Amino acid sequence: MSNNRVRHVRYGGVEAGGTKFVCAVGQGGDDPSDIAEFPTGEPVTTIREAIQFFRSSRRVGDDLRAIGIGAFGPIELNPDMSDYGHMMATPKPGWQNVDIRGEFARGLGLPIAIETDVNAAAIGELRWGAARDLDHFLYVTVGTGIGVGAVVGGALLRGVQHPEMGHMLIPTSPDELSGFVGVCPFHGTCVEGLASGVAIVERWGSRLSELRAEHPAWQLEAEYLAVLFANLTFTLQPQRIVVGGGVMNTRILSLARERLHSFLAGYRTTLRELEAVKRYLVLPELGNRAGVLGALELARRALGEDSHRGM
Amino acid sequence: MSNNRVRHVRYGGVEAGGTKFVCAVGQGGDDPSDIAEFPTGEPVTTIREAIQFFRSSRRVGDDLRAIGIGAFGPIELNPDMSDYGHMMATPKPGWQNVDIRGEFARGLGLPIAIETDVNAAAIGELRWGAARDLDHFLYVTVGTGIGVGAVVGGALLRGVQHPEMGHMLIPTSPDELSGFVGVCPFHGTCVEGLASGVAIVERWGSRLSELRAEHPAWQLEAEYLAVLFANLTFTLQPQRIVVGGGVMNTRILSLARERLHSFLAGYRTTLRELEAVKRYLVLPELGNRAGVLGALELARRALGEDSHRGM
Repeated sequence: MSNNRVRHVRYGGVEAGGTKFVCAVGQGGDDPSDIAEFPTGEPVTTIREAIQFFRSSRRVGDDLRAIGIGAFGPIELNPDMSDYGHMMATPKPGWQNVDIRGEFARGLGLPIAIETDVNAAAIGELRWGAARDLDHFLYVTVGTGIGVGAVVGGALLRGVQHPEMGHMLIPTSPDELSGFVGVCPFHGTCVEGLASGVAIVERWGSRLSELRAEHPAWQLEAEYLAVLFANLTFTLQPQRIVVGGGVMNTRILSLARERLHSFLAGYRTTLRELEAVKRYLVLPELGNRAGVLGALELARRALGEDSHRGM
Repeated sequence: MSNNRVRHVRYGGVEAGGTKFVCAVGQGGDDPSDIAEFPTGEPVTTIREAIQFFRSSRRVGDDLRAIGIGAFGPIELNPDMSDYGHMMATPKPGWQNVDIRGEFARGLGLPIAIETDVNAAAIGELRWGAARDLDHFLYVTVGTGIGVGAVVGGALLRGVQHPEMGHMLIPTSPDELSGFVGVCPFHGTCVEGLASGVAIVERWGSRLSELRAEHPAWQLEAEYLAVLFANLTFTLQPQRIVVGGGVMNTRILSLARERLHSFLAGYRTTLRELEAVKRYLVLPELGNRAGVLGALELARRALGEDSHRGM
C-alpha cells in the first residue's frame, strides 16, 4: 500500500446485487473502514442511498478518490459504446437501461470503474483472497444464476462481450428427474438452467441446504458443477477455480471435487491425485465480501495507483 | 516485412502431423519459397528427412535464421520443464518421449520454436489468413481429433498446460444412434468422442464426405459442432471462429452456422442475425497451409524480428 506516500487515500466499492447493495469505503483487504448494506429497490432510491453513504463517508476527510462498482447485469462494458455503464436487458424490474455508472459519476464527481459482479469478486479474490498468489484463475459463483469471472495472465478475460460461461450447454444427467427441462429461458438445459439455485428450487421444491444429506439433489448438483469445472479446465487450464455463491458449501464442494477428479480422468497431469483437486477447487477466502472488496480494488486500479498487478 | 533492412532472411516451418510432415522455407504468406511433404514414419527417419530438407535449402544462401514447429502431441510446452519440447504420452507408436525440439536444434544449430499443431495453424491464420484483422479469435480443427487454438489479446492462450477444448463434455443428441457411446478413451462422449472424424467413421462406417446429403450424419455432426462453437462463444467471446480440418467443408459449415445461430438464441447481440453468424464462423483462408505457414511465423516471432503483433 502507498501509506508512506499518501496516508489517507481511500476508495469506494459498490457490490450492486439484484437483491442488495453493499457499499464500502477503505483501502480494502482487512480495512473496509466503513460498510453498509441495503436492499435493491427502485433504481433512483437505491442509487441515491448509495451515493448518500459515500457523501457521508467523505466528510470524515476529503480523501475518497474513486468508486468501483461490481454490478448485476447484463451491463454494457465497452467504453466505446454510447451506453457504456448502462444496464442492458436485465430481468430486474425497473433497472433496464439505467445508467448506473453515470448516476454515480454525476452524484459524486469521482472516477467510476464498473464491472460485472462476478468479475469484481474475481478481482477481490485475486488481490486479497484465495487467488492472491496466482495470475490465471477462475472465480465461479453458483447462486440464483451461475457466473464465471476469468483472470488470464493477471487480466480479466474480455471478448466481444463479457463471457457468459453459465450458459454452457452440458449433458443432462441420467439421474435427472424425468421431465425436468431446465430453467434457463434462453437454453433450458445449460449449466445455469440445470444447476443454479433457481433450478434446484424448481426441481426439488426446496433449497439444497434444506435437503437431507442422502437426498439425490446433492449428487446431481455436484455432477453438474463438476462438468462445468471440467469444461472450464479443458478450455482455460487455470491454476485454480474459486467457487462461491449462495448454493456453495463445504459439502457440495467436497462432492464436486470427487466428480471433477473422475471427469478429468487423469488427463491433466497435475490433477491426477484427489488431493491436488482439493487445492485446485476451493471456496473463496473473502466469503461474501469478495464482491465489495473487489469493487474497492477496481476503484484503485482505475486510478492506476499502487498497481498490485497489471490489468 | 523487413526486406529493406535484410533482404534474404528466411525461416523454416515444420508442420509435424501424425500422418505427414510438411516443411517449408520462406518468409511466409505467399512466399514459402521451398516446400516438401513426406509421411510420418519412425521418429529418427522422419526427423532426419526434415533436417536434410532444411540443410539443402540452406546451401542456397546462408540465411535460414530459425525453425518453427507445429507438432501433434501432447508435447511439453513449458520451457521450465526438463523435457521441454518432448513428445509426451502420444498414441503414435514410437514417438513417445521423442525430443523433437532437441533433435532439430542439434541437427541444424538454429533456434527452434515449438507449439501444438493447432496453435501453429491459429498463428498462421492470425498472420496471413482469416483472422489477420483480429486479436481475439479461435482456430478449431475437426479431423481425426478435435483441437482448438485460442488467441486472446493477440497472444496464444496458455494455462497450466495447453487447452484441450476438444475434451469438453457436451449433451448427447436425442438423434444419436442408440448405443453409440463415443470414441474418446478418456471421456467417451466429449466433443472429440462424438464429432471427430474417428467418431463419424466408427458410428456410420464411412466418412461424412462419402454420405449422401440426406443422411442424418450431416445434421448430427452439425449439431455437435454447433454446441462446441456455442460453448466456446459463451466462454471466450471471440471475434471470430475459424474452423478447418479434414472433416470440414462448406456444407457442414453451413449446417453448423444454422445450428449455432439457434443455440446462441440471440444472447450475443452482435450475432442475432444469421448473416452475422456467417461472418463469425468461417473456413480458414490458408486451407491446409495454415499449419506450416504458422510454423514459419513462430520461427520469426521466436527471434523477435519484425514482430507483427505481440505474443
